[in-house]
Amino acid sequence: MEKKKIATGEKQFVVGVDVGGQTSKIGVVDARGEVLVQTVIRSDTYGADAEAFISALAKAIKALIKESGKEGQIRGIGVGAPNGNYYTGTIDFAPNLAWAAKGSVPFAKLLSAGLGGLPVSLTNDANAAAVGEMTYGVAKGMKNFIMITLGTGVGSGIVINGQVVYGHDGFAGELGHTCAVRHNGRSCGCGRTGCLEAYCSAIGVARTAREWLEANPEEKSLLRECENITSKDVYEAAKEGDALALRVFNYTGNMLGRQFADFVAFSAPEAIVLFGGLARSKEFLTEPIQKGLNDNVLSIWKNKVKILFSQLKESDAAILGASALAWEL
Amino acid sequence: MEKKKIATGEKQFVVGVDVGGQTSKIGVVDARGEVLVQTVIRSDTYGADAEAFISALAKAIKALIKESGKEGQIRGIGVGAPNGNYYTGTIDFAPNLAWAAKGSVPFAKLLSAGLGGLPVSLTNDANAAAVGEMTYGVAKGMKNFIMITLGTGVGSGIVINGQVVYGHDGFAGELGHTCAVRHNGRSCGCGRTGCLEAYCSAIGVARTAREWLEANPEEKSLLRECENITSKDVYEAAKEGDALALRVFNYTGNMLGRQFADFVAFSAPEAIVLFGGLARSKEFLTEPIQKGLNDNVLSIWKNKVKILFSQLKESDAAILGASALAWEL
Repeated sequence: MEKKKIATGEKQFVVGVDVGGQTSKIGVVDARGEVLVQTVIRSDTYGADAEAFISALAKAIKALIKESGKEGQIRGIGVGAPNGNYYTGTIDFAPNLAWAAKGSVPFAKLLSAGLGGLPVSLTNDANAAAVGEMTYGVAKGMKNFIMITLGTGVGSGIVINGQVVYGHDGFAGELGHTCAVRHNGRSCGCGRTGCLEAYCSAIGVARTAREWLEANPEEKSLLRECENITSKDVYEAAKEGDALALRVFNYTGNMLGRQFADFVAFSAPEAIVLFGGLARSKEFLTEPIQKGLNDNVLSIWKNKVKILFSQLKESDAAILGASALAWEL
Repeated sequence: MEKKKIATGEKQFVVGVDVGGQTSKIGVVDARGEVLVQTVIRSDTYGADAEAFISALAKAIKALIKESGKEGQIRGIGVGAPNGNYYTGTIDFAPNLAWAAKGSVPFAKLLSAGLGGLPVSLTNDANAAAVGEMTYGVAKGMKNFIMITLGTGVGSGIVINGQVVYGHDGFAGELGHTCAVRHNGRSCGCGRTGCLEAYCSAIGVARTAREWLEANPEEKSLLRECENITSKDVYEAAKEGDALALRVFNYTGNMLGRQFADFVAFSAPEAIVLFGGLARSKEFLTEPIQKGLNDNVLSIWKNKVKILFSQLKESDAAILGASALAWEL
């Protein structure tokens, strides 16, 4: 017992792995959230062969640990992955991962075996981001907050009493799929309609811009010059003062804030933390989000809930989030 | 230290107090959830004088403990009250309690002082109901569930990882005030529009019936005979097969189920437990709730979340819920 305690005490480094559709990022991280070394491997060249990918990942992790000079001092591996389940350690039916698209992959178990039994903790990417913010970021010291990731989709990680909410089955925190538009809502990737994600993701923002350009053929806009509008184009146009682009952000932020009002009624968080590609449009989103929230929230929470933007270095954030999981091992 | 431990071990009884607008119920309860003795006092005859009410309450509690024969064996007092705050032990701006309508009353502190220092734990009535279900009721053994109280209003108590969610400020779990109808929604007692409570409370059900009777002047309905329709009238009519009344329950249940879909996306509960006057209409609500939920929830949760109805004896339930708080003291 005593021996184990000392050994754990010596293991002052963790590995963070962010599994993505095209690539996976790996980093060795210290207790302060410094990424000592990092690397990237492909995730999309293994077809349906999960074991081949996990074997390549284990190899890359071992090489990176060696490079860091911290062999024998690694407490464990934290993995953030789409549809990653914290309870079971599996990645289940993840449409963007060919090797996990059609079933349940016992990812944590296989990776741990490939690393000589090093403990592996796994969760979905938004939950990992929440743990990262709580461990190293703007939510440090907070016991109650909600992380919203505004990327291709809208993800979320909910922290209550200092713990990520996993729910009965490990799948809690799907706030991107709460209903934002009840009637005639846009179709969503999940097969339903009106989800928050269909409007307030990067894809949603681009879609709003395209719809409004078509609906207002007379209105001039810089966006008319774009062939295939992305949320980045809308951001660039807004920076140039383009009225339509500015309205798109106003609409998007307002809808986010309005939806946040319901989230606040649920868990009364100290803050809502925004992260992800679209959150870089902070200058255009902050005000409408705050207005949307204050106009729609119960009066006891008006002007009480902080809207914060992640300040973790973009290139490190995904690794940090995943790595933070491993401190609990 | 040791002495205290033994003393606590001997204190095998708790007192539950349910503070309501007109009356407050008090009971002495054992560890199995048996209400040994109970009594009722008025809460509405003290004007704005909170101390006078609390003093009368303390007196009634002392007398009841004496009657139970368990003096010296009481672990503590659990109180469920509208707008009761678990963290601060205060009742804040509770519109239905004249003595707590205009400010914050340090209820737990005053009551404890009036009882010679016996510890007092306080929360709102819906949270108390959740603790009661978890301790003695259909949610016994569950770590993740949501309690919905369908009474005059719609309240909620959320349990995650076996703990009631209080949030950053103690006010979490206001699910009756999440948005059910986005545009042209009914005005709600909270000053906003479209809240779930405006539709799916006892008052909401009666209002739906009245609106539909007016909107369909040709349609025959037993409810046309009622002077001032209540949800109980709607229930009685539905039992007689009245088509309009049945449609009202269908509409209400469907809306509840649809809203539950968003709650499930938040905390992935094992069950949603219904309680309160309107929940007695179980026979007409179960199916539409389940349909509303399954039609609107993310596919991973279809047919996975149990809809349960409280089975605690109606007369004991409020006391039991409040008393259950005191086991944590």
